[in-house]
Amino acid sequence: MPHGGNLFRARALFPHAPEPWIDLSTGISPYSYPHSPIPGNAFARLPEPAAAERLKAIAAKAYSAPSSEHVAAGPGTQILLPIVAGLLGKANGEAASVLSPTYAEHARAARLAGFEVSETDDLNRIAEGRLAVIVNPNNPSGRIVSKSDLLSLASVMRAKGGLLVIDEAFMDVSEAESVASAVDQGGFVVLRSFGKFYGMAGLRLGFAMATPDIVEKIESRLGPWAVSGPALHVASEALADSAWQQAMRAKLNAEALRLDGLLAAAGITVFGGTSLFRFIRDPRAQVLFRHLGERGIITRRFEERSDDLRIGLPGDADWVRVEEVLRAI
Amino acid sequence: MPHGGNLFRARALFPHAPEPWIDLSTGISPYSYPHSPIPGNAFARLPEPAAAERLKAIAAKAYSAPSSEHVAAGPGTQILLPIVAGLLGKANGEAASVLSPTYAEHARAARLAGFEVSETDDLNRIAEGRLAVIVNPNNPSGRIVSKSDLLSLASVMRAKGGLLVIDEAFMDVSEAESVASAVDQGGFVVLRSFGKFYGMAGLRLGFAMATPDIVEKIESRLGPWAVSGPALHVASEALADSAWQQAMRAKLNAEALRLDGLLAAAGITVFGGTSLFRFIRDPRAQVLFRHLGERGIITRRFEERSDDLRIGLPGDADWVRVEEVLRAI
Repeated sequence: MPHGGNLFRARALFPHAPEPWIDLSTGISPYSYPHSPIPGNAFARLPEPAAAERLKAIAAKAYSAPSSEHVAAGPGTQILLPIVAGLLGKANGEAASVLSPTYAEHARAARLAGFEVSETDDLNRIAEGRLAVIVNPNNPSGRIVSKSDLLSLASVMRAKGGLLVIDEAFMDVSEAESVASAVDQGGFVVLRSFGKFYGMAGLRLGFAMATPDIVEKIESRLGPWAVSGPALHVASEALADSAWQQAMRAKLNAEALRLDGLLAAAGITVFGGTSLFRFIRDPRAQVLFRHLGERGIITRRFEERSDDLRIGLPGDADWVRVEEVLRAI
Repeated sequence: MPHGGNLFRARALFPHAPEPWIDLSTGISPYSYPHSPIPGNAFARLPEPAAAERLKAIAAKAYSAPSSEHVAAGPGTQILLPIVAGLLGKANGEAASVLSPTYAEHARAARLAGFEVSETDDLNRIAEGRLAVIVNPNNPSGRIVSKSDLLSLASVMRAKGGLLVIDEAFMDVSEAESVASAVDQGGFVVLRSFGKFYGMAGLRLGFAMATPDIVEKIESRLGPWAVSGPALHVASEALADSAWQQAMRAKLNAEALRLDGLLAAAGITVFGGTSLFRFIRDPRAQVLFRHLGERGIITRRFEERSDDLRIGLPGDADWVRVEEVLRAI
C-alpha cells in the first residue's frame, strides 16, 4: 500500500530531478518542535512507568480528555489501528464502514480484524455495520464532520454494541472540532497523532482516547514500555507548550493560505485540506505532479483517483524554490 | 504485573536510600552502544521504508537468519508478544505451555490470544498444547535448552499446526546457542531484543524471525513505520559492528565473573544467569535485597519465589559502591 514520505520511490520516479528533494508528499509539519536535549538515559534505560503516566496526564490536558485514565499511548497511531479495530473481538465477516476516500490503513486494519469493509462517502450509511471509521478532518479532503453528528453516530454505535473510530490525526490545527472531551459518553475511540503537528513523525507516538475500560484493553495489547524514552521526553514538553502550539497553528494557517495563493496564480483551485496539507481535485493534477516531481518536489498522488493531489507545506528554507517552480508551470 | 527498571517503586520501598540509585533490577547492559549522532531528520521525518529494509538485512546477518525476508522489526519485543501469540488465530481455550518460571509477559500474551496457559518446568511437557514458549537462555535462571532439543520441539509443533516461540532476548551473550539460522525449518518464531545487549532499552526495538509467510503476518499487524527513525539509525550501526559486539561479550563475561566473586565472598552462591544478569536462589535472598536496597542498589525480587533474586551488572562507575555494599553484608 503506497504512502507519502518515501524519497526512495520519488528518486526512482524522477531520476533526473535536482537534489535535495523537497518532500511535500506528507501532511507532517516541516517545523519540528524545539525540544530540550534528550538525555542519554532516555535511550539507555527502560522508560519509567511513572514517566509514561505523566505523559498520559499531559496528553489528557492537551487534548481535553477527561483524565489520564481515558488515554492510551502507543508507538505511533498506525500500530494502534489493528488493535482498535480488534476491540470488538474477532469479527466473522460482520460489516464495517469507513468514510471514504481516506487514509487506506483503516480499511486494512478492519479487514485484519475480520470485518467485511465498505468504503462509503455517505455519512448516513456509516453506522450500518458494527464498526465505523471517520477520519476527522479527513485526509486528504479536509472534510470535517461536526461534533454533534459524531456524537449522534457514537450513540447509535454504542446502542448496538458497536464502535465508532474517530481518527483526529490532523486535528491539532482545528482543535475546536475535537470530540476527545466527550469520550466518557462511550461508543467511540478518538485517535491522535503526535508526529504530524509537532513535525516529529520519526519518533513514533500516537494516542487513543476512550472510556477507561477500552483504554485498559488497548494497553493490555501494548504491554509495558510501549512509548520510547525519547518520545516520552519530547512529547511531555511539546504537549504542555500551549504558547508554541498557538503560534504554530497561526503560522501553519498563514502558510497554507500562501500556498493556496501560489496555486491560484497557477490557475489551480484548492479543493480542501487542512493547514498541514492542501488538497487539489483538478484535471491537471497529474501534470502538476510531474511538473513538481521533475523539479525535485514530491507530492502525494492517488493511484485510483487521477484528479486528486495532496500537497504538504514547505519549510521556511524551501519556499523560494516552491514558488519558482509553481510560477513556471 | 511488576517488572524491573522501576526507580519510582525503588524509592517508595527504600525512602531513606542514598541517591543516585544503582539500578541492577534489569538485565540491560550498563554500556550503551556508542552510536554516531542521530540526525534531526530521523526524528522529524517518517522512517523511510528503504531504511527499514536495510535494518532488516543487517539484522538478518547479525542474527544469522537466512535473509531479510525472515525478519520482522517492531518497536520492542514486548509489543510483538501478543502479535506472535495470536499468529494461530483466536484460540478458544486451547492449551499453551510456557517453560517456567520465566518472563511473565509470555503467559499473559498467550492468555490474551485466548489460550489456556500452563506454566511448566518440564521440557517434556512443553509441546502438549498448540502454542509453546521457551525463553532461551531463560530469564531469570539462565537455563539453556539445546538447539537440537528446540528443533525437535519445533518439528513436533509444526506437525500438529502449532507454534513454538523461542525468546532469545538474552542470546547476544551466548550467540552459538541461537536457532535463528534454522527458521526455514518452520514451526517456530525466534524473538530478539535489541535494547538489552546494546544498552539501549529506551529506544524500543525488537525482532521476530520466522519463515517469510509468518513474517508477513507479523508485519501486517505492525503496519508501516513500526520502527522509529532513531532506532533505525542506532541499530543499523550497532548490529553491523561485530568488533564492538565481540569486545562487549568479553567485557560482560569478565564482569559477570567479578560479580560472582563478590557474591561468593559474601557467602552467596550464584545459581545461574547469563553474563547480563546473575541469578540467586538462596534463603538469604530477601536479606540481600533489603541490604542492597537500603543502600541505594535495587535488584529484582520475585513475589511468588522468596529465595530468588536477579542482579544485573553495574556499570564502570558503579562497581566501587557495589563492592563496598556487598563487602558490608
